[in-house]
Amino acid sequence: MNVGILGGGQLGRMLALAGYPLGMRFRFLEPSPNPPVAGLGEIVAGSYDDVQAARRFAAGLDVVTYEFENVPVATAEALAGEVEVYPPTAALEMAQDRLVEKRGFRDLDIPTAAFRAVDSEADLTAALGDLGLPAVLKTRRFGYDGKGQFVLRDEADQEAAWSALGGRPLLLEAWVPFRRELAILGVRCGSGEARFYPLAETHHGQGILERAFAPALDVEASVQRQAESYAGRVMERLGYVGVLAVELFDTEQGLMANEMAPRVHNSGHWTQDGAPHCQFENHMRAVCGLPLGSTTVTEHAAMVNLLGEVPPVAEILALPGTHLHLYGKSPRPGRKLGHVNVGGEDPAAVRRTVERITALLHA
Amino acid sequence: MNVGILGGGQLGRMLALAGYPLGMRFRFLEPSPNPPVAGLGEIVAGSYDDVQAARRFAAGLDVVTYEFENVPVATAEALAGEVEVYPPTAALEMAQDRLVEKRGFRDLDIPTAAFRAVDSEADLTAALGDLGLPAVLKTRRFGYDGKGQFVLRDEADQEAAWSALGGRPLLLEAWVPFRRELAILGVRCGSGEARFYPLAETHHGQGILERAFAPALDVEASVQRQAESYAGRVMERLGYVGVLAVELFDTEQGLMANEMAPRVHNSGHWTQDGAPHCQFENHMRAVCGLPLGSTTVTEHAAMVNLLGEVPPVAEILALPGTHLHLYGKSPRPGRKLGHVNVGGEDPAAVRRTVERITALLHA
Repeated sequence: MNVGILGGGQLGRMLALAGYPLGMRFRFLEPSPNPPVAGLGEIVAGSYDDVQAARRFAAGLDVVTYEFENVPVATAEALAGEVEVYPPTAALEMAQDRLVEKRGFRDLDIPTAAFRAVDSEADLTAALGDLGLPAVLKTRRFGYDGKGQFVLRDEADQEAAWSALGGRPLLLEAWVPFRRELAILGVRCGSGEARFYPLAETHHGQGILERAFAPALDVEASVQRQAESYAGRVMERLGYVGVLAVELFDTEQGLMANEMAPRVHNSGHWTQDGAPHCQFENHMRAVCGLPLGSTTVTEHAAMVNLLGEVPPVAEILALPGTHLHLYGKSPRPGRKLGHVNVGGEDPAAVRRTVERITALLHA
Repeated sequence: MNVGILGGGQLGRMLALAGYPLGMRFRFLEPSPNPPVAGLGEIVAGSYDDVQAARRFAAGLDVVTYEFENVPVATAEALAGEVEVYPPTAALEMAQDRLVEKRGFRDLDIPTAAFRAVDSEADLTAALGDLGLPAVLKTRRFGYDGKGQFVLRDEADQEAAWSALGGRPLLLEAWVPFRRELAILGVRCGSGEARFYPLAETHHGQGILERAFAPALDVEASVQRQAESYAGRVMERLGYVGVLAVELFDTEQGLMANEMAPRVHNSGHWTQDGAPHCQFENHMRAVCGLPLGSTTVTEHAAMVNLLGEVPPVAEILALPGTHLHLYGKSPRPGRKLGHVNVGGEDPAAVRRTVERITALLHA
């Protein structure tokens, strides 16, 4: 099959690496020079909002998917008239706007933080009155990795928050006192069958994912089922095909949805070496109409992002149970350059190896 | 690292797929159009005996390896003057000539079938007198997948054997009454450290590998050690760097070496899904001077070659524990188009799945 991917970053790279063994060939639409997918297929240089470039890109393809959720809906819809596009564009619409997303969760009886739309400073004052402090002001669109967010801790923060983000469509969310953050990763195929990986525990620093551990420890079966039910409802409502990630807060009142990503997700990179079939293969199987692979996990896994720098490769590879995944990107502070997966039977040993990788990162 | 691979077939394809996550980039020297590596790196079109093309190919590379053992030694040596070439060219010299190979095994006290050099019909008569029947007449060079071999069962076969193969340098080998065929796969890095995968049991049909099962059942620890010792001796003698496969006969007198391949090998494809780090990754680690990955295996694995045809992909993927690896080749009778790996805890269940794949192949 000839597969097109909107985006040529590391997720596109790993989708292609997982798809080649299934006999797929890849073409990418990507505006930047020398992207992570360089060498892994044909690259059509073009901006994502250039519908003409997108049509050239799509000519002769069997299916199109995307590797980031800020693909313009207009582009995806133009392509969907000519070729199968999965996940469906409705998923883009929901994921691109945090207000639409939160309302979508609520419509499906999925708990979220309390939230208010904020379009003016008066709205913000009113919303703070409703929700109290602390609270998080967020742009409705184009936020990722902690960008476009401002945490308000006391009343004096209101002015700084408004001056940082005001003038764009916003929403205010009540602060959720969570015990930890979890992520559920599901994959659904056209027939409606869905499978889920075990919940991963995610650790962020300044809004960027730093580590994930899977299966998350001390998760009751009912909590896993609850998470699957939430992700499953979203997928069913959207007629979803592909991998979907839902980031969750684990709170005293139970799970609460934070955000979703209609694509393969950093919280699921551990599946490359910790599951029989990884998220990248399962996404490609789903969008190409093939049977889903297994998501059953028998060992413990962890993932450490390599942010801003890559420690000496030989030192990483010499650690027990490690698997390296580099993205072919040049270093820049905070940039995701790769990740290390760690696997083993003993979660404590896995965690020790994670600490040693972290020490290499900060050496 | 910029890696060059002499050859652009499926082994080059799988080396590249394993090397990209380690941050490697690939260039291939390959004479045929649209090879299996198409899309996976830069392809320099050229014949392997065209030293000028080989030099163009090697410009700017950090290391060169090869994916088949019939690379002309002259080409490899010309390149070795300009860039690191692993495995060493001495391994090519040994593997390209079955007589040199057999003598090499004997020099290292590795048992082989009795053999005689055959350069004339008189030599053949004398060799048959020495070794008796049945016996196998083989070309010394360019044999693979059972090509260049003639099994003599009675005296009347001598004329047919000579007319099929005579005129080239040959050797006659005594027939080895083996219980089964095994293969040992080792990897050695520049420091001299070597690791070995568990022995695989290989099943051939008309000289072509059809299936492999690993770890081979009913193998005593002493037999595994013996196999490792044989492969280890070859690697040490050659100053070997990379993956080496040695095909063995399991006989009542113990293991006997049949052939070696100084490269990743079809008998080790199961490691892609049945070992923590596969032969392709370990080969790339070794030739790039990185620490070796783990070869410790905890489950049972099998590999089924897809020869001449690819059954419906969806039916293969729906079987339990299967992993598909296609090579992007067009079908032709007997051609290796891909393979299916099967994994699981229960060797009987793995074998049942192998039977179901075989049934799909012959449906």
